[in-house]
Amino acid sequence: MNQPLDKPDRSDSYTGQARHLIAIDCIIFGFDEGELKLLAIRRQIEPNKGDWSLIGGFINENESLNDATGRIIRKLTGLEHIYVSQLYAHGEVNRDPVARVLSISYYALIKCQTYNQQLISAAGASWFSISSLPQLIFDHPKMVTMALDELRKEGRVKPIGFELLPPKFTLPQLQCLYEAIYQKTLDKRNFRKNILQMGLLERLDEKDKTNSRKGAWYYRFNPERYRQLSSNGFYFSVSV
Amino acid sequence: MNQPLDKPDRSDSYTGQARHLIAIDCIIFGFDEGELKLLAIRRQIEPNKGDWSLIGGFINENESLNDATGRIIRKLTGLEHIYVSQLYAHGEVNRDPVARVLSISYYALIKCQTYNQQLISAAGASWFSISSLPQLIFDHPKMVTMALDELRKEGRVKPIGFELLPPKFTLPQLQCLYEAIYQKTLDKRNFRKNILQMGLLERLDEKDKTNSRKGAWYYRFNPERYRQLSSNGFYFSVSV
Repeated sequence: MNQPLDKPDRSDSYTGQARHLIAIDCIIFGFDEGELKLLAIRRQIEPNKGDWSLIGGFINENESLNDATGRIIRKLTGLEHIYVSQLYAHGEVNRDPVARVLSISYYALIKCQTYNQQLISAAGASWFSISSLPQLIFDHPKMVTMALDELRKEGRVKPIGFELLPPKFTLPQLQCLYEAIYQKTLDKRNFRKNILQMGLLERLDEKDKTNSRKGAWYYRFNPERYRQLSSNGFYFSVSV
Repeated sequence: MNQPLDKPDRSDSYTGQARHLIAIDCIIFGFDEGELKLLAIRRQIEPNKGDWSLIGGFINENESLNDATGRIIRKLTGLEHIYVSQLYAHGEVNRDPVARVLSISYYALIKCQTYNQQLISAAGASWFSISSLPQLIFDHPKMVTMALDELRKEGRVKPIGFELLPPKFTLPQLQCLYEAIYQKTLDKRNFRKNILQMGLLERLDEKDKTNSRKGAWYYRFNPERYRQLSSNGFYFSVSV
């Protein structure tokens, strides 16, 4: 909704109020080589130039928070329409040594085979396993911790894990993803039973034979089925 | 942590970035007369002067988000050290017709017998049952809906309901609170069993006899016991 051009300027009601810089910082998770990974970038301005940082930027005058987040992620990864969720508004006065900057953190889940590797390389960004993260600037380590907590909390009750997998995947891949998120080994039989019982996966007529001659069936997640079941009182739940 | 006075001014790294007004809006819930209530205030500036609004204000230059929230709630209710939780950063460009203002919403739970009624009356604020809210300005109705959703989500898994009750309460009062939050009737026997089995309540040596000659025992919530149990893997859970 745009403001009409002839709207009277009443901004003097708010005259004298402090104005603030607002940044967005994105905790971008991917799943690759059996590991949950975080995308980090080398900071391009002083201070801390060259140190590892989350992907972020300032929000512009006429830009909503969601639009700014979309712009920042798209610029670095080339991706649109990915899973993004707001995490927290960080408002400590001295959290950024340069100036007073508030930051709204968002976490995003991307499918590792879909992002634009050229864009990421050109920007000096890299993927890090969450079990061996580099030192990050400012309060970014806290943001990552909060995002991981949220991912672990949401991952048990919402089908967001599928955002990290290719459209077709095998049950061993899915289990490997959950093991990476929760950093624990899951019982194969119980996991399969838990997942299949919900009736949200469709088995395709195709097998992945890269790991065994017998092969593993490919599945796909059915989001329409999930919406349908949810509206009838179904709760997604994975025991980890 | 204060910045040292001789810190070089590097704020020119961020020169040219837009600066924004940031408001805080508080969804303050109380429990009184068997109902969950919301505190609202008449807006004191144009436009929409006199309309009902959430309690809020702008954040100052050298003030953290948490400090600003504390200041705003204290000023209106006289209360400190109450349960406050950040809800969401609202960043739509035209959410406030006066100017581009981002708002961070917080929800707070207060014990209705402890706030300063004089402060609240002087400010022109009132309590409204959540089942008959007045029309609120801007995107405040959405903020209230989000806060209610969060309260209902958290209330099932964390002992935050006790924040709305006096330090000593009866089981009928506690059930009445949960019924008000979830807007449904709960089975008395199951509710009592559910609550008492967690071992978080201490029965006092005193009865409330206002509602029956036999009376109802007073209980108090034991937060130390909750912390102790939680650190040993206990999860608070109320079935509603």
